[in-house]
Amino acid sequence: MAPLLDALTGDPEIAALFLPDAEIAALLRVEAALARAQGALGAIEPADAARIEAAVADFEPDEPALRQGLARDGVVVPELVRQLREAAGEAGPHVHVGATSQDIIDTGLMLRLRTVLAVLATRLDAVLAEIARLDAEEGGRTLMAQTRMQAALPFTAADKLATWARPLQAHRERLRDLAHALPIQLGGPVGNGASFGASYERLRADIARHLDLRDAAPWHSDRTPILDVAQGLALVTGTLGKIGQDLALLAQNEVGAVKLSGGGGSSAMAHKQNPVGAEVLVALARFNAGLLGTLSQSMVHENERSGAAWTLEWLVLPQMAEATGRALTGAADLLRGARFAD
Amino acid sequence: MAPLLDALTGDPEIAALFLPDAEIAALLRVEAALARAQGALGAIEPADAARIEAAVADFEPDEPALRQGLARDGVVVPELVRQLREAAGEAGPHVHVGATSQDIIDTGLMLRLRTVLAVLATRLDAVLAEIARLDAEEGGRTLMAQTRMQAALPFTAADKLATWARPLQAHRERLRDLAHALPIQLGGPVGNGASFGASYERLRADIARHLDLRDAAPWHSDRTPILDVAQGLALVTGTLGKIGQDLALLAQNEVGAVKLSGGGGSSAMAHKQNPVGAEVLVALARFNAGLLGTLSQSMVHENERSGAAWTLEWLVLPQMAEATGRALTGAADLLRGARFAD
Amino acid sequence: MAPLLDALTGDPEIAALFLPDAEIAALLRVEAALARAQGALGAIEPADAARIEAAVADFEPDEPALRQGLARDGVVVPELVRQLREAAGEAGPHVHVGATSQDIIDTGLMLRLRTVLAVLATRLDAVLAEIARLDAEEGGRTLMAQTRMQAALPFTAADKLATWARPLQAHRERLRDLAHALPIQLGGPVGNGASFGASYERLRADIARHLDLRDAAPWHSDRTPILDVAQGLALVTGTLGKIGQDLALLAQNEVGAVKLSGGGGSSAMAHKQNPVGAEVLVALARFNAGLLGTLSQSMVHENERSGAAWTLEWLVLPQMAEATGRALTGAADLLRGARFAD
Amino acid sequence: MAPLLDALTGDPEIAALFLPDAEIAALLRVEAALARAQGALGAIEPADAARIEAAVADFEPDEPALRQGLARDGVVVPELVRQLREAAGEAGPHVHVGATSQDIIDTGLMLRLRTVLAVLATRLDAVLAEIARLDAEEGGRTLMAQTRMQAALPFTAADKLATWARPLQAHRERLRDLAHALPIQLGGPVGNGASFGASYERLRADIARHLDLRDAAPWHSDRTPILDVAQGLALVTGTLGKIGQDLALLAQNEVGAVKLSGGGGSSAMAHKQNPVGAEVLVALARFNAGLLGTLSQSMVHENERSGAAWTLEWLVLPQMAEATGRALTGAADLLRGARFAD
Repeated sequence: MAPLLDALTGDPEIAALFLPDAEIAALLRVEAALARAQGALGAIEPADAARIEAAVADFEPDEPALRQGLARDGVVVPELVRQLREAAGEAGPHVHVGATSQDIIDTGLMLRLRTVLAVLATRLDAVLAEIARLDAEEGGRTLMAQTRMQAALPFTAADKLATWARPLQAHRERLRDLAHALPIQLGGPVGNGASFGASYERLRADIARHLDLRDAAPWHSDRTPILDVAQGLALVTGTLGKIGQDLALLAQNEVGAVKLSGGGGSSAMAHKQNPVGAEVLVALARFNAGLLGTLSQSMVHENERSGAAWTLEWLVLPQMAEATGRALTGAADLLRGARFAD
Repeated sequence: MAPLLDALTGDPEIAALFLPDAEIAALLRVEAALARAQGALGAIEPADAARIEAAVADFEPDEPALRQGLARDGVVVPELVRQLREAAGEAGPHVHVGATSQDIIDTGLMLRLRTVLAVLATRLDAVLAEIARLDAEEGGRTLMAQTRMQAALPFTAADKLATWARPLQAHRERLRDLAHALPIQLGGPVGNGASFGASYERLRADIARHLDLRDAAPWHSDRTPILDVAQGLALVTGTLGKIGQDLALLAQNEVGAVKLSGGGGSSAMAHKQNPVGAEVLVALARFNAGLLGTLSQSMVHENERSGAAWTLEWLVLPQMAEATGRALTGAADLLRGARFAD
Repeated sequence: MAPLLDALTGDPEIAALFLPDAEIAALLRVEAALARAQGALGAIEPADAARIEAAVADFEPDEPALRQGLARDGVVVPELVRQLREAAGEAGPHVHVGATSQDIIDTGLMLRLRTVLAVLATRLDAVLAEIARLDAEEGGRTLMAQTRMQAALPFTAADKLATWARPLQAHRERLRDLAHALPIQLGGPVGNGASFGASYERLRADIARHLDLRDAAPWHSDRTPILDVAQGLALVTGTLGKIGQDLALLAQNEVGAVKLSGGGGSSAMAHKQNPVGAEVLVALARFNAGLLGTLSQSMVHENERSGAAWTLEWLVLPQMAEATGRALTGAADLLRGARFAD
Repeated sequence: MAPLLDALTGDPEIAALFLPDAEIAALLRVEAALARAQGALGAIEPADAARIEAAVADFEPDEPALRQGLARDGVVVPELVRQLREAAGEAGPHVHVGATSQDIIDTGLMLRLRTVLAVLATRLDAVLAEIARLDAEEGGRTLMAQTRMQAALPFTAADKLATWARPLQAHRERLRDLAHALPIQLGGPVGNGASFGASYERLRADIARHLDLRDAAPWHSDRTPILDVAQGLALVTGTLGKIGQDLALLAQNEVGAVKLSGGGGSSAMAHKQNPVGAEVLVALARFNAGLLGTLSQSMVHENERSGAAWTLEWLVLPQMAEATGRALTGAADLLRGARFAD
């Protein structure tokens, strides 16, 4: 049962990537990739690797126990590994060899962020398509440019639309670059790879290739990859918030430069058509902007692994992703219903 | 289906106050109080008021329609009023007379914040009781005070505990003061009360008395009451984060000044006992600190009602409340299992 | 040599309270009050107390050495005490008896915050006076209320002005309450007062009375008093930012509901009159809102004294005060030149 | 006269780049480059271009008038252009042709940010050199790795140093990439380049080449370039804050894994050696993290130019740069005096 507000600001598709099914599936995928690569490199028996992969394929998590484990251990992996070892039978001792919880959690997050970024990229294309359509249909219309909240000089709708499309095109490239840069995390308990033995670097490269992530030295206590994704999200919502603000200003009754369809109704004033979709974009932009600053606090990640800083990330990043997802859907809808005045 | 992380940082009791049942119940309670008071003052027929109160008592919301209404109108009230009018039959036209959505939403939020504050106060008492117990049992033990991350001079566990208890006692009083100061919102569509006619001030006083809220002039575009509650929440989590940080530092192996029971296990290092409960307090404190800054952006509330600034509040305040609730529960648990070294 | 930007956003009067002269004077005043009270209570010889007070009266700080001391010690007090001890001659050993740097720094800050709050209160009165004048002169004019960025219903300029005056009046009371609540800090090296001996509580009360601050138990590691002041500042700039946003919206060419005098010129468009003063209010509001969140991070104040958290306060609070000061001056100027359309 | 705190957290070299001399010089350089390019392209007479370049070379600004202009216009350019036109004599009317204030301000900022980034890069090299030296001298020493605030397993100082060096090396590349990506701003009053006539694109390319900036379409209302620089700064201070936090933890008396030279003295406890340099790094990291969130609010940049959002940038970005500069200097000093225990 979700809050009513989700109807306005939520994004079920993105949110689902942070729900238990997706999270557990991603963690299991990492454990399977680890076993598979260790089997291939001879670090564990290939037969054990196969048993672990089979156990992962059939795995049915005991979710209540996972929740208890997370509440106790601060991270879900110890209990998940326990369950997976049980499921793997005789291969159980060869599950999670050399790895630390953070290897699995961070890599599993990257797998899901790749999906998040792909979803967002597709939606960003849809927003860009709406802008292109508006440009094609109405780009020639004259519009009063506004600077510092005062009428400046006339320009065209095309000029205006270009100020929206350019940053979004750049963000589109950024989302792609971010997706390509998502790194594997594999460092072992103290982040130096020693627990994986001599084949550590080959192991890392193999898992990275298999999971289609970037091979990278451990970044347990360097949260730059997280911050770069968050910055990308905040830039997308920032530009969409700018578009929302512009549309709300252009749609003011006294300005009338834009008409928005599907405006919201009022409980008290039947004549009103509120630019709800535009306002929500502003709200989501300011929300993500603030969250970016909050998330940045997690760069002060003490020692080899900070439970406090790490937990802070988990509290913030998923909602930034969801806000971005909803802002993109909302922006496409809003633009679809927008018309410049003749 | 909640994220796994909820097991570590969620608070079902507080979260429930922001779920549809509680939200709709609070909104209905405000509509009923409005009708009741208007009936008593003769602004509507007493019989109509009674019908509306009865309709509220029996009301079964069409929740999917409410969600659609919220998505369309940016606020759930127009659709809720439509449903309630239907349910009220011939008294339907007398539902929500003179009111604007914001009157109902903000007042309904205050009703739930009163419950939130009461729950938090009770839990804060429990935290204070744990500190008092520790003080009684172990207050005499000697402890090395630490300033600027260096050993300073010995003092006692009682001295240390006093630095935790004093701010919490002050926050306890603040929660009580905040609860008493929660204001009714009643201003009508443009916030000047004109839509309620000559009996406006009596109406406001009557509803406030009935709902046990503070009578107050409209604050549609002045969000100070929201910010004051948020500040109270951030102060509570701030002090609990300080306690968590202290306990994590005191429980370091090399310091050993405190022992924490129930520490978290590691997937890679069986000997470890991680101070998970302490770390979570730090994370929740930094989370709420950042959210307070984000929420403060909503003070720039343009015109007579800003959908953007208002929506931003809805995105932020509930999670601040939930984080505070969980931090209090977690702090009590953590302190219950803490022992100062002999 | 100040940045050019200071001409737009700086406040020399407030800034001066955070410059060396004011800071050193406040610190010396605390040292003198400590010696005076210790002399009166017999903790040191009255003659030594008198010598210390005389040394403070004639003190000429070696400012370069103070800067070096601050850079080395993280706090200016050790070097200041060294200089003052030298100046106090034979009474030197009786300077700063029992105190820790934080006692002097925090109490010295409170003394200056009292001045800050008084300056702000006077300026807030001036803003309120401008609103009252506008109300008297033009309150009867009709204005279109705007909700959710759409024309709502007509109301009066008086209605509008009331939405600005009410929160400012409440903030005015808050500034007064905050000034009365500013606490003395006196706890000694580990914050339990033990270094001051048996007369500790009388000493604290005496100094508080003498400095006209509130007597309070040590709050070395509880930064609530700082946060409460910061919240007060952010609320003031928040409301002024709201007023600035409203004025910029009302002064749009297409709306024309307000005329602002003294608008800014453009380098490219001679016809423009930019609502610079209104925009600056919005900028300062968003600035302080963000800073409030940043400052709140300092609630996680580890151990008995955190250099990191404390330094963060020093980086943030003075600029919040200065931003508030300038916003108040700017708001009064802006309102002085504002006229509602007939 | 700077605040005493500057001795601990200020950076005179970086700060100077935001003082009037550097700011005015940069603005003039942009005006000269514009005239020069317009002369070369025939948009103005080459002789006039030469006169303007000569006037810039000899220009003596009336700084008080510039401050008044900034206070009035919200931007210094209108008054600067007035003064420069006067200085350029008969070529006066050909100064600033087609340009808007934002073109000059933003491009001038990019010129100074290039210097900022170069200074920071050099300092970051120095930090990396200290880490490399420590690694060469003491990398083989054994150290207890710490995860979640508990002893994990032994590793080496080299392992630890690698967790500091890797992100800093990446940040070093980022600073270089950011410097290469700094864009020219040239869009004219409404950001579509129309005021520059047919040779607009050649003009832009020519100025960019001359100023050694990246040619770019106008980004008046898209503040991504500013946010990317800010993110880079926050990442640098974030990693340095992590190093500071680590060093403060390692230098705890009970841990004793690191010795720091030059620790700060206490006014009350002569035995103490406070890790002031480490604490300041943490403070600056949390400061910049929060400022990044505040700056991100300026992405909601309404219409073709938002005075409010733009002013917010000016309030925030310079202090982020200064904090980063000081953190780098401080980190190098701190590491220079750090020794791992045998």
